[in-house]
Amino acid sequence: MIEQTTRYGMGATVDLPYASAVELVREALAEQGFGVLTEIDMKATLRNKTGADFRPYVILGACNPTLALRALQVERDIGLLLPCNVIVYAADRPDRSVIAALDPAAALSLADNTELAEVALAVRERLMAALGHVAEAAGALSTTAG
Amino acid sequence: MIEQTTRYGMGATVDLPYASAVELVREALAEQGFGVLTEIDMKATLRNKTGADFRPYVILGACNPTLALRALQVERDIGLLLPCNVIVYAADRPDRSVIAALDPAAALSLADNTELAEVALAVRERLMAALGHVAEAAGALSTTAG
Repeated sequence: MIEQTTRYGMGATVDLPYASAVELVREALAEQGFGVLTEIDMKATLRNKTGADFRPYVILGACNPTLALRALQVERDIGLLLPCNVIVYAADRPDRSVIAALDPAAALSLADNTELAEVALAVRERLMAALGHVAEAAGALSTTAG
Repeated sequence: MIEQTTRYGMGATVDLPYASAVELVREALAEQGFGVLTEIDMKATLRNKTGADFRPYVILGACNPTLALRALQVERDIGLLLPCNVIVYAADRPDRSVIAALDPAAALSLADNTELAEVALAVRERLMAALGHVAEAAGALSTTAG
């Protein structure tokens, strides 16, 4: 199941190789009304820019346009905290991946605005549903599994 | 000058129309070692997806690869808080724009990790320098100016 993994994120280790995990996460986000507005292949970026060898790691910028508009109308500068990041990276065992999403409630707590808190909870619910769907389809493991 | 504008951001209103402000911010970020890894034209996105008419507004995902690598090595899930957003949007007066950056110290405070806090301060210093450069070149106004 999806668990709080850090103070700012929630996710799971799933029994899927990296490429399949990325694909399932994309599909699940779309089903929950999120467009993926940005995508950073962190492994490629780090290799190109620093020469470092890093694990397969992607950062997807997920955005539900209706909820984003509502947030921007409440607080114009909230774009600093948009879109909501979803990461997928290869776990230490090559047949496993970690999937996680920024907890919008944690992120928007920085804004300290009760109207935004309501939007954050709506986003949170959908992100949890998306990740939960992937975890269920794939067989979720404990977040501490390799 | 660059001021804390919200609990999570720092910026200024500058005496520049939107397109020029975007261009100057890009240049200043590059000078400070930031690549722009992502870019969201929020006005276009909101129009296409919701039909809403919103002010010109761009979200740039700025990343200093060396500092990003260091952060990822300290905490694998920190990709949830990368890259660091810089926004530029049209102010209410058409000859003015607002430029702002996510305060990395505020964002990484969510992680509650002292090693990360050090990286955050390094990023913060460079972002402040970049925005400060634009503000100086353009003539910064009070953050409360239209």
